[in-house]
Amino acid sequence: MRWVRMRHQGQIVEGEWIGEFVKTGDGREIRCTDADWLPPVVPTKVVGLALNYRDHAAELGLENPEDPALFFKPLSSLTGHRAPVYYPEGATHCHYETEVAVVMDRSCRGVRAEQALDYVRGYTIANDFTCRDFIRNIFRPPVRAKGYDSFCPLGPALYTKDIIGDPDALEIVTRVNGEIRQSGNTRHLQMAIPDIIAYISSFMTLEAGDVILTGTPKGISPVYPGDQMACEVEGLGVLVNPVVPDAVRHAHHQ
Amino acid sequence: MRWVRMRHQGQIVEGEWIGEFVKTGDGREIRCTDADWLPPVVPTKVVGLALNYRDHAAELGLENPEDPALFFKPLSSLTGHRAPVYYPEGATHCHYETEVAVVMDRSCRGVRAEQALDYVRGYTIANDFTCRDFIRNIFRPPVRAKGYDSFCPLGPALYTKDIIGDPDALEIVTRVNGEIRQSGNTRHLQMAIPDIIAYISSFMTLEAGDVILTGTPKGISPVYPGDQMACEVEGLGVLVNPVVPDAVRHAHHQ
Repeated sequence: MRWVRMRHQGQIVEGEWIGEFVKTGDGREIRCTDADWLPPVVPTKVVGLALNYRDHAAELGLENPEDPALFFKPLSSLTGHRAPVYYPEGATHCHYETEVAVVMDRSCRGVRAEQALDYVRGYTIANDFTCRDFIRNIFRPPVRAKGYDSFCPLGPALYTKDIIGDPDALEIVTRVNGEIRQSGNTRHLQMAIPDIIAYISSFMTLEAGDVILTGTPKGISPVYPGDQMACEVEGLGVLVNPVVPDAVRHAHHQ
Repeated sequence: MRWVRMRHQGQIVEGEWIGEFVKTGDGREIRCTDADWLPPVVPTKVVGLALNYRDHAAELGLENPEDPALFFKPLSSLTGHRAPVYYPEGATHCHYETEVAVVMDRSCRGVRAEQALDYVRGYTIANDFTCRDFIRNIFRPPVRAKGYDSFCPLGPALYTKDIIGDPDALEIVTRVNGEIRQSGNTRHLQMAIPDIIAYISSFMTLEAGDVILTGTPKGISPVYPGDQMACEVEGLGVLVNPVVPDAVRHAHHQ
């Protein structure tokens, strides 16, 4: 099943995505073009892995860590398909990062890798948008660089695991204004998804709906206001977001 | 008002803390000793400041950063007054960090320091418990070191701001097994609370209930299973938590 959440006439609706419609639990069919896409799940936390593809670490001039390097993105950074990503004023080094996002199905702690996929509800696409102007020194956790409002587009839909085969062999392609900028495959993940879940749950409870961003492959490049990012993962659709100057957000919210 | 949340006979109850009782909205009076303390608020995120007291940065051999060094603690790390903090197996360098925690009252973004306290509901005590065994290199955000389940005791109560005067002049004292180990005063915060709120909200929406940990003064020291930590902040009571081997958690949850 492909599960979506949308804002329609001021209400949040959710349900199965069929063709051009969302079919809600109470039997309504809402045309997607009449609604705004929201992140398909409501997590209690979003955990990301930095440097989980060897080729991406190399392009940043860094070595892959022995243990996974984790970070959090706050819930306030989540946004949906088609929603703007706001470009901070004065920034110059902002990058898309297309990733497979794992969505947990139920609370777990201390899960073994062999059982880990039993706790997964499904998968979606994340754009772990990052402003490297804000990474002033490597001591600093990337709270501002990765946690800025709108820096975590998620969607368009949650694909339940029954319709995705092996999550460790999915093609990843990012297009900016139609041009291919990034490509990779989850088979090159340094730490595979079951091992990631086992590692995180060894010290931290993962709750139903929690999201894990599995890392981005080589091919990041700067984007600027006016650009359109299309983050595609094989079998999970395409997550599209325009880059918009932050001043536009001010104008909308005042 | 002093606001508490508790688990009583399998239900979550909340209300005003008066003497030995919680007075709930529906008029019940529940004896605190008959219930388990929970964190007094349910945030969407917990943002912490590292190195926000000069003397604490010095004891770690670090310089204070020019901009605040922020990190997140996950909601899964929250726990209440009197609840155990679980000591990871094999760890040797785990430290209490007593801090004033700010609780936000309503959603805000782009708040000026002069208005910042208008958005605050009140204050409570946090123990930003940290396992420095897990800080292997300074690149790594402290997800495991500060995000381990139970590493964020919060409470005992939320003190609304009308009963706390100036939050920038509160004494902080930590006792371990009754012995004073840490003392400081929020007047030595490098960045004061209104400036912290202005800084964070300059890039990230703060939601109602969100918690900001304002940093710890000098005086961290290791604690071990069997120790009892008592984190006191002037006017906010005492947050008490025992340190318990993680193996005990396993025994409870299996």
